[in-house]
Amino acid sequence: MSDKRFALGIDYGTNSVRALIVDISTGEEVGTFVHNYIRGKDGIILDDTDANFARQDPHDYVEGLQASVTSAVREASSAPDFSVDKIIGIGVDTTGSTPIPVDAKGVPLAFSDEFKDNPNAFAWLWKDHTSHQEAEIITQKAHEWTTDYTKYSGGIYSSEWFLAKVFHLANVDPAVYNAAASFVEHCDWMPALLCGNTNPKTILRSRCASGHKAMWNAEWGGLPSQEFLSSVSPKLDGLSAKLYTDTYTSDTKVGGLCAEWAAKLGLPEGTAVAVGAFDAHFGAVGAGIKPGSLVKIMGTSTCDMMVAPELHAQIKGICGQVDGSIVPGMIGLEAGQSAVGDIFAWYRDQVRWGVDNLLQSDLSDRTDLSERAKANALPLLTERASSLKPGQSGLLALDWWNGNRTVLVDVNLTGMILGLTLGTKPEEIFMALVEATAYGGRVIMERIEEYGVEVNEVVTCGGLAEKNPFLMQIYADVTGRPMKVSRSAQTCALGSAMFGAVVGGAYAKVEEAQEKMGGLKDVVYTPKPENVKVYNRLFALYRKLHDSFGTKDYAENLYPVMKELLDLKRKSLSN
Amino acid sequence: MSDKRFALGIDYGTNSVRALIVDISTGEEVGTFVHNYIRGKDGIILDDTDANFARQDPHDYVEGLQASVTSAVREASSAPDFSVDKIIGIGVDTTGSTPIPVDAKGVPLAFSDEFKDNPNAFAWLWKDHTSHQEAEIITQKAHEWTTDYTKYSGGIYSSEWFLAKVFHLANVDPAVYNAAASFVEHCDWMPALLCGNTNPKTILRSRCASGHKAMWNAEWGGLPSQEFLSSVSPKLDGLSAKLYTDTYTSDTKVGGLCAEWAAKLGLPEGTAVAVGAFDAHFGAVGAGIKPGSLVKIMGTSTCDMMVAPELHAQIKGICGQVDGSIVPGMIGLEAGQSAVGDIFAWYRDQVRWGVDNLLQSDLSDRTDLSERAKANALPLLTERASSLKPGQSGLLALDWWNGNRTVLVDVNLTGMILGLTLGTKPEEIFMALVEATAYGGRVIMERIEEYGVEVNEVVTCGGLAEKNPFLMQIYADVTGRPMKVSRSAQTCALGSAMFGAVVGGAYAKVEEAQEKMGGLKDVVYTPKPENVKVYNRLFALYRKLHDSFGTKDYAENLYPVMKELLDLKRKSLSN
Repeated sequence: MSDKRFALGIDYGTNSVRALIVDISTGEEVGTFVHNYIRGKDGIILDDTDANFARQDPHDYVEGLQASVTSAVREASSAPDFSVDKIIGIGVDTTGSTPIPVDAKGVPLAFSDEFKDNPNAFAWLWKDHTSHQEAEIITQKAHEWTTDYTKYSGGIYSSEWFLAKVFHLANVDPAVYNAAASFVEHCDWMPALLCGNTNPKTILRSRCASGHKAMWNAEWGGLPSQEFLSSVSPKLDGLSAKLYTDTYTSDTKVGGLCAEWAAKLGLPEGTAVAVGAFDAHFGAVGAGIKPGSLVKIMGTSTCDMMVAPELHAQIKGICGQVDGSIVPGMIGLEAGQSAVGDIFAWYRDQVRWGVDNLLQSDLSDRTDLSERAKANALPLLTERASSLKPGQSGLLALDWWNGNRTVLVDVNLTGMILGLTLGTKPEEIFMALVEATAYGGRVIMERIEEYGVEVNEVVTCGGLAEKNPFLMQIYADVTGRPMKVSRSAQTCALGSAMFGAVVGGAYAKVEEAQEKMGGLKDVVYTPKPENVKVYNRLFALYRKLHDSFGTKDYAENLYPVMKELLDLKRKSLSN
Repeated sequence: MSDKRFALGIDYGTNSVRALIVDISTGEEVGTFVHNYIRGKDGIILDDTDANFARQDPHDYVEGLQASVTSAVREASSAPDFSVDKIIGIGVDTTGSTPIPVDAKGVPLAFSDEFKDNPNAFAWLWKDHTSHQEAEIITQKAHEWTTDYTKYSGGIYSSEWFLAKVFHLANVDPAVYNAAASFVEHCDWMPALLCGNTNPKTILRSRCASGHKAMWNAEWGGLPSQEFLSSVSPKLDGLSAKLYTDTYTSDTKVGGLCAEWAAKLGLPEGTAVAVGAFDAHFGAVGAGIKPGSLVKIMGTSTCDMMVAPELHAQIKGICGQVDGSIVPGMIGLEAGQSAVGDIFAWYRDQVRWGVDNLLQSDLSDRTDLSERAKANALPLLTERASSLKPGQSGLLALDWWNGNRTVLVDVNLTGMILGLTLGTKPEEIFMALVEATAYGGRVIMERIEEYGVEVNEVVTCGGLAEKNPFLMQIYADVTGRPMKVSRSAQTCALGSAMFGAVVGGAYAKVEEAQEKMGGLKDVVYTPKPENVKVYNRLFALYRKLHDSFGTKDYAENLYPVMKELLDLKRKSLSN
């Protein structure tokens, strides 16, 4: 037993960072710790006057690294046969695109006296949307360019992405822009920091981050050309020189843990560190992604990930198709729904609104009730909705509360609920929202298959997959496919650890690490034929609405929609 | 001053009956009383197993007559110059179609020992929908018949109406059907009772009730023929002989108050009693309806009433067009929205759901909070919505929570909310619901004007008009028309009193009674030009959805709808 070895996965989320220590031969999780960021609101620096604004102070990243890893190590230390010298490799994933302006040594400008109070010098969190105008300009220019640089990212450049953010910085804060020697993705900066060399000229850039969010592609020799960037704006003259040409997959070793961070973390100097990537991509690896498996990471939003040995055509509306972004050597496909759990949280806040707003004078001394109502809302809605049959509510919703990421790639779409009557109950609306997200997921699957990539199994992970059997059964019934669930509840950190094991030399390929370290839970949500039948009819109606409101080329009389819903409702109630 | 004269109006609503005593030269209301029915749930006999079921025990009508009138007289007695002998006439309105099966003397079968516990022998309240299958058969047969008897009632015979209910009775309870010598509308039975002769052979039938709800029309010599009824079902053989040929407008005197009821009410024997009619029609009279005036009676639903000297064509989708049904000598037009206040009440129950459902264990001893939350909900939503600008929410709703009565005449339509985002707040949804009902009202106005009936003014009455300035301003802004408000808060009872004054001989025509006894409040809600502009754009989007989901002949790509809403939202927020 004394030959056990371990890997460390570090997973930077939106509000916290998690460290996970895993036995590389079994995947057993021997130590974990979550550190919540301490700055801003739940780690996010907001601007009260601009809802699009979301930054993070990189101090949280640095402090969180030490806090999470040392605590995870402490926990692991009680496991038999664990010792820190048995950790052979480290992987890191982060949110993205989350670029950080850095100086010539790769130190975040946020750490300088000059810019320490200027959020434009901080990390631009993935969900910062301040750059929407710049994104539109980049999209427009890319479409006009001899090479359409958006062709591997769904035809649209998003305000969430690297170059739009850099461009917006150039527009709104030239002082910071000009002071920056480079812009580094959060997932690139962390491994570099661990290895003690953040020089932006030599830092290893993630294929995943660059391919999905910066239009990097080998087809055109890397990033979009300086000519292109200058055509977007003369303010971007010289930007190429601040950036890079090469990118790396995460089976590449950045280097060994430097003395300083070895000391801070209590780990051996020289421990191998892998090239970083985005959380969803490592999450897919941790969940066991392989050709034919669709991995759904289901939380506030979803990521729907696949890998394919090769692609015969670009799949319309799939945001990212990047060689090696998930599993090295295969094309990584990234799709997703921009709001899923967020929609349920929105509805939770609707139904508990009365508690906070209608009884102020009566309950001013009972502030605990607000939290109680919040905690009770979704469980109660779920419990009551569980006794409803498909079609019974007569409702149909479009799941576009935060736009539509895949397959319409359009932030300017909004949510809809149809079929409301004077008898409609909250649990019926809740169920319709769950169903709508399932329909959205089915659209993604069908689009992928249309282009010849077969979906042979669906593996789910994330909070909703772990905690909501009601939702999972609806997903199975709506898609007509069994829903499997990843064994680990922390697949992102596990995927990081798998790459740590690869660069640590234990495995030649990440597929081997997946084989040893991953797995599924016993539970499988199996489609119920009688429900599948009803949902096929409902999905056909969803498609009508989806195409009519979501595409420019579809006109159909929608008169039958409400009629069919009422017909399904009557049939459901008479069964 | 001693030559003052008064009239008595009696208004039977869904849950109560109101008596009102009015000075006929000024309209001053000197005595009023509301008696709540004591049987069933708020006066309605329900069937737990059938949501369509709604009956009333005619005992409530009889007891309520005495209770309300004697109390109104008592209040009036403290007014200067009032005495009961100065009451010159009585008018009565009721809900409808509310038919009552009666014996050969016109006594309700519900009063017999045999049927006193059988709700099929009771009054079939207007909102009883148990007859929907029969209504479909009647509609179908009418369309096939040489004369389309539905041509003056919107092309559809409703489950709420007289003949459908009689037919359903024949189907479900032949004993009651066969025992009935006739079927009498509630509004016909009350005046007959007051005059001491309820013989169904001689009872004066209301033009309003018969024309709007029983397909009576002079064009085909009265009710649909026995041949037609027999073609609907052989069970209806012989029905014509139980019914009637002639109908009467409410300027016709039924007779004088009989000795028995004079004694019960404390009024002079022989006081003139007018032919009855439906509440909304008398309400329109009480609100001052005249050619060019649209009267909106705004409560749980709306009735939109007009009169016109003549009509050049049937107005498509306007449910009723009957000569003399509102003002004798003019065509009465009846349109309406099947849910307005009911939609707001539904939403009130959504936002207060959390209070009743999320905190049971915490607040089991505070049952008062449920009522408190109920009372606070709409005022708070209104207050918060008042600071929103048109278009700011990005929302658009279709007001079909209870189907669409005018102009689509389709119960199989349902409500919809579009434009939802993660930031959508309850007060925004509430405002969108109010706006949707205003758009629905505008559709009615535009349809009427399309057919050459000009709407020169809008006079509103009813609970919403009295109590909700926020809603009234939106109606003015959405329609681009000033919203006037009837002076009386009880226009139905006032309209009844006006007809009482006519049959009492004080006025030759009801128009003269309106002139003296009616009037407007000082408040007028005037359209704000900047809001009208935004609402014109929103209404155009509403029309797109209305026609796409509500009609069979309209197909349009709806892609621009969400985009335009977001554009209006951005513009509204940047102003």
